[in-house]
Amino acid sequence: MRIHIPAGFLFSAAAAGIKASGGCDLGYAEAPAGAAAAAVFTRNRVVAAPVEVGRDHLHRSGGRVRALIVNSGNANCATGAAGRRAAEGACRELAKRLKVPAREVLPSSTGIIGVPFPAEKLVAALPRLLADKGDDEAAVRRFAGAIMTTDTRPKIASLALAEVSAGRPAGACVLGIAKGSGMIAPHLATMLAYVFTDVAATPRELQRLLPAACAATFNCISVDHDTSTNDTVLLLASGRSGVPLRAVRKSLAAALTFVCGSLAEQIVSDGEGVKHVARLHIEGARSRREALCVARSIAGSLLVKTALAGADPNWGRILAAAGYSGVNLDPRRINIFIGPQQVCRQGEARPFDPAAAHACLLQPSYDLRVQLGRGQAAVEFLTTDLTEQYVRINAEYST
Amino acid sequence: MRIHIPAGFLFSAAAAGIKASGGCDLGYAEAPAGAAAAAVFTRNRVVAAPVEVGRDHLHRSGGRVRALIVNSGNANCATGAAGRRAAEGACRELAKRLKVPAREVLPSSTGIIGVPFPAEKLVAALPRLLADKGDDEAAVRRFAGAIMTTDTRPKIASLALAEVSAGRPAGACVLGIAKGSGMIAPHLATMLAYVFTDVAATPRELQRLLPAACAATFNCISVDHDTSTNDTVLLLASGRSGVPLRAVRKSLAAALTFVCGSLAEQIVSDGEGVKHVARLHIEGARSRREALCVARSIAGSLLVKTALAGADPNWGRILAAAGYSGVNLDPRRINIFIGPQQVCRQGEARPFDPAAAHACLLQPSYDLRVQLGRGQAAVEFLTTDLTEQYVRINAEYST
Repeated sequence: MRIHIPAGFLFSAAAAGIKASGGCDLGYAEAPAGAAAAAVFTRNRVVAAPVEVGRDHLHRSGGRVRALIVNSGNANCATGAAGRRAAEGACRELAKRLKVPAREVLPSSTGIIGVPFPAEKLVAALPRLLADKGDDEAAVRRFAGAIMTTDTRPKIASLALAEVSAGRPAGACVLGIAKGSGMIAPHLATMLAYVFTDVAATPRELQRLLPAACAATFNCISVDHDTSTNDTVLLLASGRSGVPLRAVRKSLAAALTFVCGSLAEQIVSDGEGVKHVARLHIEGARSRREALCVARSIAGSLLVKTALAGADPNWGRILAAAGYSGVNLDPRRINIFIGPQQVCRQGEARPFDPAAAHACLLQPSYDLRVQLGRGQAAVEFLTTDLTEQYVRINAEYST
Repeated sequence: MRIHIPAGFLFSAAAAGIKASGGCDLGYAEAPAGAAAAAVFTRNRVVAAPVEVGRDHLHRSGGRVRALIVNSGNANCATGAAGRRAAEGACRELAKRLKVPAREVLPSSTGIIGVPFPAEKLVAALPRLLADKGDDEAAVRRFAGAIMTTDTRPKIASLALAEVSAGRPAGACVLGIAKGSGMIAPHLATMLAYVFTDVAATPRELQRLLPAACAATFNCISVDHDTSTNDTVLLLASGRSGVPLRAVRKSLAAALTFVCGSLAEQIVSDGEGVKHVARLHIEGARSRREALCVARSIAGSLLVKTALAGADPNWGRILAAAGYSGVNLDPRRINIFIGPQQVCRQGEARPFDPAAAHACLLQPSYDLRVQLGRGQAAVEFLTTDLTEQYVRINAEYST
């Protein structure tokens, strides 16, 4: 599938030796004429150095970004003042070469927590990284590959924008690149995701658009209910298409939701050890918040997740997890559907065809529907099964 | 080890054919002269029929109990009005044979959710159950065995009471029997546990003692963070020792905490697929509630649990889970210890011996200590690793 690449951005990647495997572990994106930026960061109270530095730089630059440097293989978290100095130093070295203030460089890191950050390796790789920049599909794919950790495939989504009135191509587009496979849980941003557009917009306008796009996408997924210390979603707008935001506001908002939604789906289906993705529809809640609360409780239940791993239509576990969600449910109003089949009506077993339900749960993805009978609010939430492979990956491998 | 059996109770068990395996699936306890009772039930909003019936019977009898009937193999949950009629009917049949009002019989069930309850099988087994009563150790062990589901061993704890002043044997004791292996999560009662004493006390006095004993024991454990729909802790006092509560109040409170604590520990170490039990010490919190919140966040983290499965001293996952607990932590004040070794000081990596930490985590049980640096409150919490076997058990087996 063709990747739409917004004008005004260059991409690159290199192997800096931060990952033990020796593979590509540095991703680089540059807006040669600068870009307006908005970001959403992890809500974890334990925050990695690059998140602190990035937040600070965005604040001090008023949302102007010239370059972004992302490493995998080390989270630069719980590394104290030395870790912060390392992140600052890397930004400064890069800024010197670009002849811009360090505050216009944003750092991102992903990998193991609590291991000193080898800034010297990153700095040594900068010349190669800068020599190799490109604005083509190959460069975008190299960037997407370099930021992977336990991911088994790169995650890219893009969309061309249409003009508000005519539905004509507007001559601008949105491109998103993400990484994430484990430590995926729903609270604001969850993993690393970078979204690029060539629409002309101010940082303030972008900061209004981004959280709305995240709410229905990255905030509605869970692999293992662990919220990372490094999560970042960054939106950069180069303005190089010459298309002003007012001409494509609705189209851009929809494109952001589409691109973030696609990346979120790619992250979930590439979740560690994941064999099945369930699209949870929570309906009939009093509020979206309430629906989310029930969705997270079901998505986080080990008994639900292991039943999904076994394609076992054991809906009682879904009911029990809804029951301890903290929402004041009346069990006698709850309906549950596995795919098209209703298995629970008003809180009670309803005769159903277990073979058909099993066959549905053997699919790589399917719908689970829980109706609460309390109101009109609903949410769609992506969750996964929990397999022996997830345990193996995380018991054997320090990430 | 000798089991202390309080005077005034009889125990029995039978195979009623509710479990597909054909094993013992009915446990029975009787207080021939009646007993005062207190109970703590699940906080799940989805509540099984026997919990509703039991709560109602306790209320209507003013806390007087003559008999207790417990089945494994079927939770009688999400079974609607028919399930409730089935539980009521079973109590009525048993009450008829005992010549007492049905409200003096308490039912309990554990097993799969959403499958119609075969009350007729239970009723058919009553004559065998009643013919076989005993007050010896063998009868107690048969009761403990009959209520097991995925448990691999029965769970029994007992203690003789001492008189307040002299520390002399008081001539009364406490006996506890529990089941539980999966769907174990900390919110009030978590699993089925029955505690018997021959001290003379009123239901109101017992109801004051029981929650305190549960708070530090059953509420401080987690296997899989799933709160069951059937959880019950029941305390029965026959009064048959002739020892009044006032003579042994402190000793009884301590014995209840000891017995509940021992049962809680037995449940955790027999958790599904569990290879390692971690005793989490959360210290330096502003309140016990805050300490519990951090403990539950760490205990529920799949990444922590899988690291423990692999004996991987990846303390960054512990720090990250504390960070998303919802408590307003300052990461720069957090210390973490694996066994005796400090691995994180003031939120930063501290050089440590990874081989020694690995060796510590290979033990069947060990201490993990997290100091928050916020205040004086602390909590001890038992949690487990998450192994491939847990996934296998719950993916392959409908419970």
